[in-house]
Formats: sequence, structure tokens, C-alpha cells
Amino acid sequence: MRLARRGAPGSERVIAEVSGTGRVLPPEFGDLNGAFLENGALERLSALDLSSLPVDDLESDERWAAPIATPGKVVCIGLNYRDHAAETGAAIPAEPVVFMKDPSTVVGPFDDVLIPRGSVKTDWEVELGVVIGRTARYLDSVESAADCIAGYVTSHDVSEREFQLERGGQWDKGKSCETFNPCGPWFVPAAEVADPQALRLWATVNGESRQDGTTADMVFSVLEIVHYLSQFMVLRPGDLINTGTPAGVGLGMPQPAYLRAGDVVELGVEGLGIARQRMVQA
Amino acid sequence: MRLARRGAPGSERVIAEVSGTGRVLPPEFGDLNGAFLENGALERLSALDLSSLPVDDLESDERWAAPIATPGKVVCIGLNYRDHAAETGAAIPAEPVVFMKDPSTVVGPFDDVLIPRGSVKTDWEVELGVVIGRTARYLDSVESAADCIAGYVTSHDVSEREFQLERGGQWDKGKSCETFNPCGPWFVPAAEVADPQALRLWATVNGESRQDGTTADMVFSVLEIVHYLSQFMVLRPGDLINTGTPAGVGLGMPQPAYLRAGDVVELGVEGLGIARQRMVQA
Repeated sequence: MRLARRGAPGSERVIAEVSGTGRVLPPEFGDLNGAFLENGALERLSALDLSSLPVDDLESDERWAAPIATPGKVVCIGLNYRDHAAETGAAIPAEPVVFMKDPSTVVGPFDDVLIPRGSVKTDWEVELGVVIGRTARYLDSVESAADCIAGYVTSHDVSEREFQLERGGQWDKGKSCETFNPCGPWFVPAAEVADPQALRLWATVNGESRQDGTTADMVFSVLEIVHYLSQFMVLRPGDLINTGTPAGVGLGMPQPAYLRAGDVVELGVEGLGIARQRMVQA
Repeated sequence: MRLARRGAPGSERVIAEVSGTGRVLPPEFGDLNGAFLENGALERLSALDLSSLPVDDLESDERWAAPIATPGKVVCIGLNYRDHAAETGAAIPAEPVVFMKDPSTVVGPFDDVLIPRGSVKTDWEVELGVVIGRTARYLDSVESAADCIAGYVTSHDVSEREFQLERGGQWDKGKSCETFNPCGPWFVPAAEVADPQALRLWATVNGESRQDGTTADMVFSVLEIVHYLSQFMVLRPGDLINTGTPAGVGLGMPQPAYLRAGDVVELGVEGLGIARQRMVQA
């Protein structure tokens, strides 16, 4: 089973896909947010006969929203793939590099991405997104982090390199522009992902391959990241963690090349679905 | 008129203070959050005869919550006072330095602050907090930023310097520990603050003066900050902006001195009320 959200912004409904058919969840489940995950909705769903629920036509052209409602926070890990650190000229970090995105940047997987006004270095970054399901605070062990992960999503950590690296100070400035975190289409419960460290992830720009990596190459694993972050902040149900991107971003190309209005980025993480965004000038 | 929120976490009520008396707002106003500010509640309140509303005993020892509900994001400006930049050994920034805090760090003005486990450099920072009241996106002029500001709060940007500066990467890691953003006690509407660039702000630790500055010394003014940020991200109603701290933090002392369990920090911004937090080991 995997879940998604469909509908116009502000009126999304939650659907479940089972054996290729979409089913609309009963309204008492509410939106797919922190409360949903914290209150055991995933477990209740597993016990439900979903085949009696109304069908949602997965082939219709209705909007796909991000598969989770706006998170309380979006935490990102930088330089978490050796080949990406190398292509940006950075050293392999000794500890996870942590930064944040404005949670309101989370949009649907096929929504347009806005090239910010004044931007000449808007860049792509496919990432494995981790959704927290249970509060994580000073976790005792790396292994115990598994209990706090609700599931996984394809996440696009869109980045403006000039804003991030050349405008003074911290990275957040180039990470939080409007629409800079498309997410989805699917939320896949952790129980259905056999090994989060063995997922292919890739991105194309206008059909040309740009990123093609595997989560096996992460410097810090998903469990290490969740354990580590819990020593510095409280991770809460519904929070999103972007776990870093493999090599192949625009910044890393021999002739750096960035996104322009009209470009189409397609990206995916194995088993979590394929997203596709058109670039539009803000 | 100024507003506050009182009650246990999760069941706060909004009160207004007029002529020294607290009044409980009618439930139809809802919580003091982005929707409240966006929907003109401040204007409606001005038109209301508050003297008919139930009295809230301002002297009672009931909890004071943060005067705004959990923001969609907390954006912070670093090194925004010349004397603070100098004391930390940093240059005056050419552009605002921008970073973020986990919004769930926002707590009440008299709540305990948790010294993180493993922390030896927990530090204080009194700041003028700006609360957004209207969506700000690519503002045309510095002046137009005034229309997007709902009001002001005393904000404490608690910081762990080792996590922030010595553990690799970006600052956010030392800014987002649990309880690291006490706020309040009062939300003062922008219309009642004659000049946000002429406010004294100060902090004491165990009764000894540590910070004593004025917002006149900001490198970038409140309006410049809001205008600037709107070029990089969308500011939304209910968002909180911490506008930087003047000299006198622990990091800047000739012999750097940090907070320990049992210490009491008192801080205030002129007209916005005085906050006081006890440090407790997490």
C-alpha cells in the first residue's frame, strides 16, 4: 500500500493505492499530516478492507499534491553523497551538515517550479525524503531511529546556488524560494521499503540524464541521520528530512548549467514514484 | 492595546490588555495565528468595546504562552548589530545573513529553557521579533514592507555555540534545540510601536547586565529585512522574524561564559514586555 494526496491546494483528499487501484480514504482519517501518522492511521489502514472504498481514478489529470501536508519543519542534510561532495569541491563532512527549508516550499510533484526573480543558478537535487512518524528526542541508538520513521517520499531540494553560496552567510537563503520543495507523488510506509539504503534515485533535465545514484552511497545513512538530528532538535510527526543528493547537479557540471523557464525536470526514487516539474519564471 | 496568550500548551486563550486590565477575547476570534492576522482580527478588535469582555487576571500565576501560535517558519538575521558582529570577530555583513530555527522551538516567555545534553556553550540573544501579518512576495520597495508587519514581540534566540560553529556546516544545528525560542509576553500591534528602530533591548543573567542595546544600531532595519527576505522566500501571516542581537552575548565576553542549569535570563524589548527563563538540564 502507498498513499497520495490529490486535489487543489487546500482541498486535498488522501488516497491509497492497493493492487493498482486508487481508493479514497474515509474522511475520519483526516489529512495525511503529523496527527495522522502519530495516531496510528497507517496501522488502522492495514486492518481495513480498502476494496469497499470509493475508487480514485489514478489516470485522471487532476492535481497530485505533496503526499504529506505542510510539515512542521523541513530539515536537510548537505553533502551526504561522496560523489556530490567531490563535484562541488567540498570535503566529505565529518558530521552531517544540517540546514533548513521553509516548510511552505513543499508543493505537489507535478506543480510548476518558479525560477526566482533575479536567479541565474536554479539547480536540481533529487533526494530521498524521510517522513517522521513518532517524536524523536535524544534517541539512544542508531537502531531506535527506525521506530520514528513513518515512510518515504521522492523529494526535490531545488536550490539557487548564487543565493545559497555567493550572497553571504548561510545556505537557507538559496533553499527556501517559493515552490522549491516538490514532493511525491507517493508516500510509502517504512514497512514497505525493504532497505532505504538500496534505492536508485535519478533526475533528468529535458530528457537528458543528470543524476543517477543510489542511496547506498550516502555518507550518513537514514538511521544515522535521524539519530544524529534527534541530539540537536526534536523531530516531530509529519516533519520532512531531505537526506542529500548524489552527483550530477548543475553546479557540479564541467560547464555549470542551470535551469531556465521552460525546462522540465523529471526525478524519481525507486518505488516512490516519478515526479516531473516544469520551470516557470516567477 | 496589546495581546497575549495564556494557558497550558495546547489550550491557550488569547487576551487583550487595555488600560492595564486583561480581557479574554471571544472564541470566534480563534487563536492568535496567521489566519487571525490575515483576516483582519486586529482591526475588528479595535472596533470592539473590550470592556464588556471577561476579565483575565494578569497577576495570576497561570502560564503565559508565546503570544503567537507556532509560526509556519522562524527566519533569523545574523550579525545585524555592528557591536555584536565585532564581538564575535565577524565582519559587518554586506547583505543580511539569513538562517532558520525549527518553529517548534517557540515557547512561552517564562517557560524553562532546556540546556541540551552535551552542551557547554548555551548562549543568550535578546532580539526584536517581527510578526508577519500579510503575505510578502517580491516587495517592490522597502517602504511597502510596513504593510506586511502585524506587530512585534520580545524574542530570545537561544543559541548553542559549539553546535552552531564547531560541529560542521551551517548554523541551524545550534539554533533549533528544544525550547530555544522563548517569545513574549506581549504581541504589540505595529500601529502601537511608534518607531521599531528606537527601542531599547537588554538581557541580564542572574541579575547581571549582559546586553543593553538599541534597535537604532541595526545594520539592516526591520523594513529592509522584510523587503530583502521577500526577494528570496514568501513571508506568510504568522511567520516570525528574529532581527538579530546587540553585543553582550556569552560568546563575545573576554572570557566567554555560557549558561548552566539554574541560571536565570531576563530580557526585554522596550514596550513589548519582560521575559524570564530558568535554565534546566535536558
